[in-house]
Amino acid sequence: MTSRRHFLSGAFGGAALTATAMATAASAERVRRTSLLGLPEPVEQSHADTQAPLTPPTGRPYRPVLTLNGWTLPWRMKDGVKEFHLVAEPVLREIAPGMTARLWGYNGQSPGPTIEVVEGDRVRIFVSNKLPEVTTVHWHGQRLPNGMDGVSGLTQPPIQPGETWVYEFTARRPGTFMYHPHADEMVQMAMGLMGFWVTHPKAHHPLISEVDRDICFLLNAYDIEPGASSPKVNTMLDFNLWTWNSRAFPGIDSINVRHNDRVRIRIGNLTMTNHPIHIHGHEFEVTGTDGGPVPKTARWPEVTTDIGVGQMRQIEFIADELGDWAFHCHKSHHTMNAMGHNVPNLIGVKQDDLAREINRLVPGYMAMGETGMHEMTEMDMALPDNTLPMMTGTGPFGAIGMGGMFSTVKVRKDQPAAHHPDGHRDPGWFRHPPSSVARLWQGEGTSAPTAPSPSHPTDASPSPVELTVRKPAGHSGHGH
Amino acid sequence: MTSRRHFLSGAFGGAALTATAMATAASAERVRRTSLLGLPEPVEQSHADTQAPLTPPTGRPYRPVLTLNGWTLPWRMKDGVKEFHLVAEPVLREIAPGMTARLWGYNGQSPGPTIEVVEGDRVRIFVSNKLPEVTTVHWHGQRLPNGMDGVSGLTQPPIQPGETWVYEFTARRPGTFMYHPHADEMVQMAMGLMGFWVTHPKAHHPLISEVDRDICFLLNAYDIEPGASSPKVNTMLDFNLWTWNSRAFPGIDSINVRHNDRVRIRIGNLTMTNHPIHIHGHEFEVTGTDGGPVPKTARWPEVTTDIGVGQMRQIEFIADELGDWAFHCHKSHHTMNAMGHNVPNLIGVKQDDLAREINRLVPGYMAMGETGMHEMTEMDMALPDNTLPMMTGTGPFGAIGMGGMFSTVKVRKDQPAAHHPDGHRDPGWFRHPPSSVARLWQGEGTSAPTAPSPSHPTDASPSPVELTVRKPAGHSGHGH
Amino acid sequence: MTSRRHFLSGAFGGAALTATAMATAASAERVRRTSLLGLPEPVEQSHADTQAPLTPPTGRPYRPVLTLNGWTLPWRMKDGVKEFHLVAEPVLREIAPGMTARLWGYNGQSPGPTIEVVEGDRVRIFVSNKLPEVTTVHWHGQRLPNGMDGVSGLTQPPIQPGETWVYEFTARRPGTFMYHPHADEMVQMAMGLMGFWVTHPKAHHPLISEVDRDICFLLNAYDIEPGASSPKVNTMLDFNLWTWNSRAFPGIDSINVRHNDRVRIRIGNLTMTNHPIHIHGHEFEVTGTDGGPVPKTARWPEVTTDIGVGQMRQIEFIADELGDWAFHCHKSHHTMNAMGHNVPNLIGVKQDDLAREINRLVPGYMAMGETGMHEMTEMDMALPDNTLPMMTGTGPFGAIGMGGMFSTVKVRKDQPAAHHPDGHRDPGWFRHPPSSVARLWQGEGTSAPTAPSPSHPTDASPSPVELTVRKPAGHSGHGH
Repeated sequence: MTSRRHFLSGAFGGAALTATAMATAASAERVRRTSLLGLPEPVEQSHADTQAPLTPPTGRPYRPVLTLNGWTLPWRMKDGVKEFHLVAEPVLREIAPGMTARLWGYNGQSPGPTIEVVEGDRVRIFVSNKLPEVTTVHWHGQRLPNGMDGVSGLTQPPIQPGETWVYEFTARRPGTFMYHPHADEMVQMAMGLMGFWVTHPKAHHPLISEVDRDICFLLNAYDIEPGASSPKVNTMLDFNLWTWNSRAFPGIDSINVRHNDRVRIRIGNLTMTNHPIHIHGHEFEVTGTDGGPVPKTARWPEVTTDIGVGQMRQIEFIADELGDWAFHCHKSHHTMNAMGHNVPNLIGVKQDDLAREINRLVPGYMAMGETGMHEMTEMDMALPDNTLPMMTGTGPFGAIGMGGMFSTVKVRKDQPAAHHPDGHRDPGWFRHPPSSVARLWQGEGTSAPTAPSPSHPTDASPSPVELTVRKPAGHSGHGH
Repeated sequence: MTSRRHFLSGAFGGAALTATAMATAASAERVRRTSLLGLPEPVEQSHADTQAPLTPPTGRPYRPVLTLNGWTLPWRMKDGVKEFHLVAEPVLREIAPGMTARLWGYNGQSPGPTIEVVEGDRVRIFVSNKLPEVTTVHWHGQRLPNGMDGVSGLTQPPIQPGETWVYEFTARRPGTFMYHPHADEMVQMAMGLMGFWVTHPKAHHPLISEVDRDICFLLNAYDIEPGASSPKVNTMLDFNLWTWNSRAFPGIDSINVRHNDRVRIRIGNLTMTNHPIHIHGHEFEVTGTDGGPVPKTARWPEVTTDIGVGQMRQIEFIADELGDWAFHCHKSHHTMNAMGHNVPNLIGVKQDDLAREINRLVPGYMAMGETGMHEMTEMDMALPDNTLPMMTGTGPFGAIGMGGMFSTVKVRKDQPAAHHPDGHRDPGWFRHPPSSVARLWQGEGTSAPTAPSPSHPTDASPSPVELTVRKPAGHSGHGH
Repeated sequence: MTSRRHFLSGAFGGAALTATAMATAASAERVRRTSLLGLPEPVEQSHADTQAPLTPPTGRPYRPVLTLNGWTLPWRMKDGVKEFHLVAEPVLREIAPGMTARLWGYNGQSPGPTIEVVEGDRVRIFVSNKLPEVTTVHWHGQRLPNGMDGVSGLTQPPIQPGETWVYEFTARRPGTFMYHPHADEMVQMAMGLMGFWVTHPKAHHPLISEVDRDICFLLNAYDIEPGASSPKVNTMLDFNLWTWNSRAFPGIDSINVRHNDRVRIRIGNLTMTNHPIHIHGHEFEVTGTDGGPVPKTARWPEVTTDIGVGQMRQIEFIADELGDWAFHCHKSHHTMNAMGHNVPNLIGVKQDDLAREINRLVPGYMAMGETGMHEMTEMDMALPDNTLPMMTGTGPFGAIGMGGMFSTVKVRKDQPAAHHPDGHRDPGWFRHPPSSVARLWQGEGTSAPTAPSPSHPTDASPSPVELTVRKPAGHSGHGH
């Protein structure tokens, strides 16, 4: 959750974005060849930092979205048509600091860049296939000619490796969409090949609110053995890396908003199971789906929306509570990283009649987890290379002990507005008002600490195995 | 997806329907015996073709539904009561051409026939148990006397093998229901014992639209080892055959409608997991559940509805986009057939540090899937007998590479109306208008093919393993 | 499903509730120590019986909820603040008669007691940690100061074993909430550490109906090997005990209501998967979520609501159908108990070509399930100690053959009102009106039995293996 972002200053700078890509001869060669064919320059991205929203340099204006740990694809305006160039290819994606996966993506990263257009825009998308097998692109949710729908065999032949194909249609319906292959799709989505699409309304729409923040990301999941880097593509249920835009906590950036902002978050699910996305401290409404806006009479308040596979849910809320609010999938395994799914329960094993059996089955097993698993969040375990700890991350009060689909919404009075160059900067940890933090009870008359005590995590005693009640007065670190 | 249907010409012909059944001595014997008891003739079905809607020969009129790869059960009118006869029994069900399963069903097939009545109808259902164990029938969602609810032990004794029991109640609530056992139900539903029930409204209902097409099917799932034919009944999660009305693609018929038809599809889920049913090119609304019609203020647009277990979702849309639109469960494993779930990922294995380990673990493993799995859709793999390929089906542009819960909605200008004898005929593949199909980019000034090129699939070159960009001009098959 | 309840007579009696707790020296010692610190007495519960609703002894009045197989935590009013004391600790929970699990809970049981307050109440909750590792309490869905949100590391340091911490906030929003740890939460929720919270509205709320019955429970799940008592805490999908308030059928009490009562049931899901909760014979509406009440324009009728993880669904219906109505999760494996998930399918194995293979794989395997699994409901199988049968329970018509998330709603004309001391008593089995029970067909002119025949289950013949049709006249037990 360290702030490792690199923001561009608003307006689009294609040269800067492709600077890294240019560095390799292969990319340069590709650009040369595509130029010969008149294709738009294939803009690439080489890292997982959240990029500032792309203020539209040409075409009709709109308020751009922020793609969490992602970016928006620049376009070329040609005779009134917005031309985009997607390149499907193997990529390296940092899932979180310390772990990089070999995925398939578009334009250098997985997921691919967000495509943003305006209702009524004529759109031409060039798709180059640099994968080792055929692909297509299906524009999930769009109204378009049947032959542009991207279903291999049914509406078009597959795109062979090395080929560039062109899709062209008018973005008729404002809304939130996804794009992904419809050729060998189980494999290709398990490898991370997908992206987001937002068609902004061309005029005021009675069911589409104007919001202060507009953020989007995809839910995806991988099954990568600890120590490996390639996903197992046939996994149906037992994924071990649950990610937002191919990032796992603590690699997912926080969502940083101003107090009382109206916030919209658009979330698309391209995994194999439901994800109940939960926010702390606020209620939201689902104001739209990939089918369109939800009429106001049909909305209701939620703190958790269960997003089905192949669904997009657009949630909106007023960020009227200051603080650092957890925002995560509520399936507890989905806020964990790889490892640990096969660890037997050794809680209270000393007094358990299973003890002998476990010792017999797992001779020499380290007595890890005898009191639960929290100790693992503080333990310096030796992990295989390229493997994330199961429970990790550090907050202002010590170990957070999470992974996977977990992030925070940070609500601050002084956060710059979204269109400001610093509008999405991470404000750091929340400074709690006096007496507003849960506190150790030490008898009547004691008062609470008013702010995080940075020394607390280190002076915490190790967990006693016996169920003795520790004398509270013997525990330091909280003011009184 | 070949059109193998056999349509009856509208009005009910019981003799024709049971012609096949009559052919066996066992059935004839049963009919004889039931006649002695005064039971209605147990109409049977011996194949999985979609039968034309059953125009009601007696009783109040209604617009009948079409059961996808199924049929509606005829009744006998007796003193104003509609009498149906369900026979629970082992059946053979063709899941798709090339694979037949030993299931449990009603009246010769799994699922059983759809029961259609009119709100207010008095209904008497005889249930004969030819299974090797007890059963009951629960009328999911219906308002009825508690003793007719069909819960073994709780509201009635179980129906012993060989017995015929009678249920009788008034179909008080118009709506869409399901019927299934409530005795050893985990086993009996895992074996395919279930059916659909539609109670049509007796008069105009403000929340029940008159539609041009009304189609229904059940979601079900089986776990049948490749080469076997009987489901493993204890599987909780890891099913390998995901079916609609016990059919898997390419065995599921297409849904064929006329341009601008209002289409209603009623889908019930009797599997063990959610199925996010997704349509291409259109948006729909959920207009009803097994609990009743959804008020108009509570509806919203979707392209994917996530149908929970034990739920019925009635979706409606205007088919205003011409073409062949994919219609499927969006969980990518659910559009696959058996096999393949335990195949390790060998994508890019040559340069992967896992290569040595995999070779050690799987000596002599065929290097299948080194570039993804699309090649399997074109490979002539030797399969065990009675086993469906994992990814299969052929469309106008070559291999579709799907299985399981996948079909198409075919929207045509000249499709006959639903009540016409040919109203549900398969119109064949869509003829795309000029320049409306995604096309190979070969530089500026080239134009697109205007229609499917039947020669395309065969002249596609094999996928190169190296990531070289093939020279587009060297690829033939597209006009310019 | 035997009625083993012990109801208190309405008003709160703290001494009675803690009588059992007082019996142990350890508890007495704890009470002594907490008294020294000025803490409220930690009221405990030692059994799984449904306790009568807690009529509020102090504070503003409200109509209390009934916690299914649970209870409401008494409070101490101190200077206008309601003070509660939760003790997180290892507990023994009877899952159903015959099986007790070693769980983690609050105040003696899992789940913890329901907390009930009134909108606007100032609430102070003392949390004592008697677990072997750190914990916190997150107040799911509540509006509160960020520092009271209970996310370990993010909003507070963890509560060390032996410590007591204090949370304090105003219950600003009326609604239904949950509480659970947000520290090592995968483990701690897999061990059963959770509870319910209801904030009653302070005045008439246009979207919150006044109901005649108000019942609540949590969905939870465990993975406990047959013969063991401790859950395996790393299980992600393959749970084998699906419970309501840590009880499995037949250990779940029935919901007993008066004819035409308006009934509200509040259900929170803290498992790892969706639970489609289904009622027989009635339709309901979801009238509220943990996010708040659903506007009336946004409600629609259901017979099954699919409750996502981390969601609360408040359903309401008029109990206008007399009888014993099944009420259960519709995933058929979730109405089973442990065992049986790895049993191969032997249905019809005699004529199956798999027979030899199975015999080879499972030498000496008992030919159980050759005709389905119903026979297991009547078989006196030897089970490991502390293990529930997979399918069990006895009703008025014999074996019910269920387990897990299954109960009944009993609707009676003469059930006392909810506020009556006997308002929630189990009325026994339903007495069906004449001719209202499904019946054996024995030819025309025969009539039906009018009431359960207690002798029926015993005179049922064993299931014949061959598919012969038994002559109905040879089967006795039904009147004619």
